[in-house]
Amino acid sequence: MRPVSQLDVRRHNAALALAAVTARPGSTRAEVAAATGLAKATVSTVVDRLVAGGLVTETGPQPRAGRGRTGVGLALSPAGPHGIGVSIGVNHVTACLVDPLGAVRARRLRGGDNRGSSPSAVLAVVERVVRSLVGEGAVVGGVGVAVPGLVRDGVLLSAPNLGWAGVPVALDAPVPVVVQNEANAAALAERRDHADFVLVSGEVGVGAGIVRGGVLETGVHGFAGELGHVCVNPAGPRCGCGARGCLETYAGTDALPPLSAARAGDQDALATLHTAGKYLGQALSALVNLLDIPTVILGGDHAPYAPWLTEPLRGELHHRAIAARWTTPRVLASTLGREAAALGAARAATAPIADDPEAWLQSRDQAL
Amino acid sequence: MRPVSQLDVRRHNAALALAAVTARPGSTRAEVAAATGLAKATVSTVVDRLVAGGLVTETGPQPRAGRGRTGVGLALSPAGPHGIGVSIGVNHVTACLVDPLGAVRARRLRGGDNRGSSPSAVLAVVERVVRSLVGEGAVVGGVGVAVPGLVRDGVLLSAPNLGWAGVPVALDAPVPVVVQNEANAAALAERRDHADFVLVSGEVGVGAGIVRGGVLETGVHGFAGELGHVCVNPAGPRCGCGARGCLETYAGTDALPPLSAARAGDQDALATLHTAGKYLGQALSALVNLLDIPTVILGGDHAPYAPWLTEPLRGELHHRAIAARWTTPRVLASTLGREAAALGAARAATAPIADDPEAWLQSRDQAL
Repeated sequence: MRPVSQLDVRRHNAALALAAVTARPGSTRAEVAAATGLAKATVSTVVDRLVAGGLVTETGPQPRAGRGRTGVGLALSPAGPHGIGVSIGVNHVTACLVDPLGAVRARRLRGGDNRGSSPSAVLAVVERVVRSLVGEGAVVGGVGVAVPGLVRDGVLLSAPNLGWAGVPVALDAPVPVVVQNEANAAALAERRDHADFVLVSGEVGVGAGIVRGGVLETGVHGFAGELGHVCVNPAGPRCGCGARGCLETYAGTDALPPLSAARAGDQDALATLHTAGKYLGQALSALVNLLDIPTVILGGDHAPYAPWLTEPLRGELHHRAIAARWTTPRVLASTLGREAAALGAARAATAPIADDPEAWLQSRDQAL
Repeated sequence: MRPVSQLDVRRHNAALALAAVTARPGSTRAEVAAATGLAKATVSTVVDRLVAGGLVTETGPQPRAGRGRTGVGLALSPAGPHGIGVSIGVNHVTACLVDPLGAVRARRLRGGDNRGSSPSAVLAVVERVVRSLVGEGAVVGGVGVAVPGLVRDGVLLSAPNLGWAGVPVALDAPVPVVVQNEANAAALAERRDHADFVLVSGEVGVGAGIVRGGVLETGVHGFAGELGHVCVNPAGPRCGCGARGCLETYAGTDALPPLSAARAGDQDALATLHTAGKYLGQALSALVNLLDIPTVILGGDHAPYAPWLTEPLRGELHHRAIAARWTTPRVLASTLGREAAALGAARAATAPIADDPEAWLQSRDQAL
């Protein structure tokens, strides 16, 4: 425990007040004081600065129960710092501009196969997309980039399904850039509705974002969530990673039939999806047995296949999760579509501002 | 945030002071004040109460760097509240009496097959063992019982390898009884030397205790760590749980040859151990892929087999853990032997006293 400086106190108070306004939009200064335990005069100073800096807006007089003056309601300003999120997929680059309330204000989608592509060419596309979203005119607080592979310190160490290894994800951007695994980013996007869950992000690879008590599990080195490389059959087909029988050889999108064939009731397609759902269930049973997670969300390209994957998946969970008799995990389909990873990356990119608004305000002061 | 009462403050201060003494044995009252930020007068009052209550002992004058009076050193009292830990295994009941410094002061071992036994007969043995350890004359602060199965609210829901289900683990004991899964208890015993690891507890079943950042992972309902029921081969043999190809059908002790055969170099025995090690490695690769855990400790009855299990296990981790190129998990053998679960259970039983020594002191005041 070190001594606390005046600046520390100011930063702490700003973060506290902003969190109170975020948690209860419409709160007055007096209510923020009551919720935070800060003195009313302190709250006044802090809130005035948050309003002047564009983070908080006054929503007009609030009706008050009881006597006394009506207060002015406060809320996060929808014109405050937006996040830009970009997800680099095997066959798409998806991006969105997200306001401080979490709403998508603009989106971009570039189709095309990024497999075996040159990283610099794809990163140039990402930069163009980011510039185009910056061009929407909103204040931008950060850029998040989601990639389908292992990330350490802004470097994409390995993305076998892109054929990339050791790629620094550096962008020419005027704001901080946060790089993370795409399944982790997608899980952050689901966090609004769930606190303990695994988000399965299906593409050519299969990733997972594990969230417990609202906190993303990253592991000691940031490499957690590699569900696609859980072995489901030691005698199975060879995976891109070199091992045999990894889940993604059965449940990655390369192994799945076209959606149209499933919808048409094609028997081969249905049998393939049944097998994929079973193996997904086997791998997720391992996760549930190890971590006791109550909710599975099928996301990414798995979500539209959920009508065919869910039943065999549930069957395996019921059969293999040892505590299923007392607590059977729920299986849900994500409703966020392909945008989930970009959305989560955008939110992650502006999270540091919510954690330390004073630092952001100071950087704006210096920039002016 | 609720208002803080005087009693809360007293409890908080007592816990703080005790933690400071535990972390730095030999600290003087002045050093405890410096480490905790409490006023010297407060520390004096609190420490006097901890000494009078038998939790802390004075170790004599400490040499001081610099000028001024020498202070009196403080340490956890080895005569303070001991924990009794009992582990119910498939073929043993192991128990120990553990002092506040974590040292085993007495032990009991009852061999014999508990499979298909009557729970009440085994629990009567546990009660006799506890009474016998209470008879050693130490102050006892709590009893911990470790069981090989799923536990909820003191009830052993299911222990297929014992043939038990829905057994309330109630003991006639004069102190609080804490019931937990045996692999979790064993992991707590390893926590002194490691912060992020999985402890594999091999017996007829195979359990795991997952510890991250020094904290045991229990899962949302307390059912985490069921490594033995991770499926390693969907076409494998039928497990006691009803599913096919669970790890414990290959790596539980029923599937292993006698140690003597392995030591004699028997080729069948070595081949069986190689297969067991491979499947252990496959299941642990799933864990490492999902959670990014840097250390695997082979414990329980697996520890003596470590010389034969480790190489195939390491091979699978290297081959299947997707981040192994950047960070290969270490594989170690536990040195705690069969006592690990009892030791961890004993420590867990007295942990509430360290967390809230004032509550314990008050219960003693009332008892007198």
